Amino acid sequence: MASPSLSEFDLIRRYFRPAGPSGDPVADARVVLGVGDDAALLRPDAGHEVVVSTDTVVEGRHFFPDHPPESLGHKALAASLSDLAAMGAEPLGVLLSLAVPEAEDAWLTPFSEGFLRLARAMRAPLVGGDTVRGPCSAGVTVLGQVPAGRALQRSGARPADRVVVTGELGGAAIGLAAEIRRRDEGARPPDANDPVCKRLFWPQPRLAAGLALREHAHAAIDLSDGLLADLEHVCAASGCGARVDWPAVPLDPALAGADAALARDCALGGGDDYELLLAVPPEVELAPLAEAAGVALHVIGEFTAGDAIRVVDAAGAPLDARRPGHDHFAD
Amino acid sequence: MASPSLSEFDLIRRYFRPAGPSGDPVADARVVLGVGDDAALLRPDAGHEVVVSTDTVVEGRHFFPDHPPESLGHKALAASLSDLAAMGAEPLGVLLSLAVPEAEDAWLTPFSEGFLRLARAMRAPLVGGDTVRGPCSAGVTVLGQVPAGRALQRSGARPADRVVVTGELGGAAIGLAAEIRRRDEGARPPDANDPVCKRLFWPQPRLAAGLALREHAHAAIDLSDGLLADLEHVCAASGCGARVDWPAVPLDPALAGADAALARDCALGGGDDYELLLAVPPEVELAPLAEAAGVALHVIGEFTAGDAIRVVDAAGAPLDARRPGHDHFAD
Repeated sequence: MASPSLSEFDLIRRYFRPAGPSGDPVADARVVLGVGDDAALLRPDAGHEVVVSTDTVVEGRHFFPDHPPESLGHKALAASLSDLAAMGAEPLGVLLSLAVPEAEDAWLTPFSEGFLRLARAMRAPLVGGDTVRGPCSAGVTVLGQVPAGRALQRSGARPADRVVVTGELGGAAIGLAAEIRRRDEGARPPDANDPVCKRLFWPQPRLAAGLALREHAHAAIDLSDGLLADLEHVCAASGCGARVDWPAVPLDPALAGADAALARDCALGGGDDYELLLAVPPEVELAPLAEAAGVALHVIGEFTAGDAIRVVDAAGAPLDARRPGHDHFAD
Repeated sequence: MASPSLSEFDLIRRYFRPAGPSGDPVADARVVLGVGDDAALLRPDAGHEVVVSTDTVVEGRHFFPDHPPESLGHKALAASLSDLAAMGAEPLGVLLSLAVPEAEDAWLTPFSEGFLRLARAMRAPLVGGDTVRGPCSAGVTVLGQVPAGRALQRSGARPADRVVVTGELGGAAIGLAAEIRRRDEGARPPDANDPVCKRLFWPQPRLAAGLALREHAHAAIDLSDGLLADLEHVCAASGCGARVDWPAVPLDPALAGADAALARDCALGGGDDYELLLAVPPEVELAPLAEAAGVALHVIGEFTAGDAIRVVDAAGAPLDARRPGHDHFAD
């Protein structure tokens, strides 16, 4: 039900200002001043650099108007925290710029619950933001910290480093395909608990993996544009090429029933999985790092000299699997 | 002219990634990593806290579709930097989340010029952001630093502190009135150099004033909602009241021809001036601080015990001048 007289201040207080912003004493101790002044004040640990990234999702562009609001709150934050994970950073705080056509409780309550639940789980206190009436969009800015000079960057991969990914790939793409089909078939509302949409609706930022691998990997990126597109970003920044061994690419369980071509398109070209891709030198033992990261680590290929990116089958024969990544202005 | 094939990456590179992001060696030295990785890396000075704020302006809500783009780029950044000024912070870096319906060079070039010119002038390097196709909006996140424990907050005002404002007030409101009249009268495009719109189009964030007064003022806020509304925020946070001496309120030169009631509405109730309001104890000498701030400092009243906010005339008689401030969800 719309509450048209709800003011901006009430709205922030009611939905986004719980008693304890993260409920985590360590995270909260770094927040000198949270929501409610002209700006927030954060106290990074001594000897640390500040990591900052911002991402905006827009209705009709990044999500359908009927996207389950609890998932949207979760996902908007997850996508930004994923950038911190890719730098090997731990969160200091997050800011939310929310535009909604009206202050509708039935939407704002689950949106804020999805957002704040993930914020608490990731020890990322909400420290600021703004709300405005407008076409629905959510801009999330995340701040984190890394010991000075230790951040993972895209530019450090070297030939002979292994191409390592966390978790499984292609789940968001197959979920999106299912969502598009559902919409084409009629007006059934989306189901936030649909298993095929699990990755699309509930991506997990790999912060623990970023921290566990920070001192061991040469480079990292998060998989938001798609495996090949993001691998290209790393290769371009690092001045090298890469070989991907298709049989080694871990497929999301939601791809189990899909035909081979679709599975490949989803796993190599689909965006929004928010796993990490890392360049890990050959001598690093992965098993203990996977344990610390709380997620599987898969070696799916190798960085190479030159600038070519090749995908090969079990026999080493090239697969034609190039697909451009997601680009908000190119389609 | 639309360039529909312009990719997100080209767009960021072409318009927002000049060779030297700020051209300022001190500011740039704190940028370990700027645009182009998963996140930016900033290195605050030792012993400093990080100040962060974000603000989004939306077409049709905060600006007209024909708002001069160079002014819009300037103003979106100025409004966010003004929050740093109100904390007594110096900028570390800024991020821009830009949504535009299409990548139109005739709009993006002046928008980015207005944005980057102010960024350079304020030593605030552009370190990140994103671009997306969508209804026009600009979200600006600013990061700054203050020596630990020294940030100005809204909550420190005490009875007997003077109410001090920088510069002149009411200019943005009279400019907005002129803009609305111009639009009502026909289709003449807005003139970015119209003197009556100077404050509306080209607000100046008072960073130097915030720095100059940081060690002397008890509290500060920037005037974005309007003098009385923002004074209320300070009083509420500080647990005190205030008296404003109307004859002492400095009026913007653009109000010279306006009738008395309009001038009062604009100066007391109009938002968007982006001057600072500060609580300064009586013993502090203002002249040398104004010199350091590069802007006039006006004593316009006094903080008082209780919680009432009163505006009085030259004889001390109360004026009925309450007006609610700008609230994005209340109108």
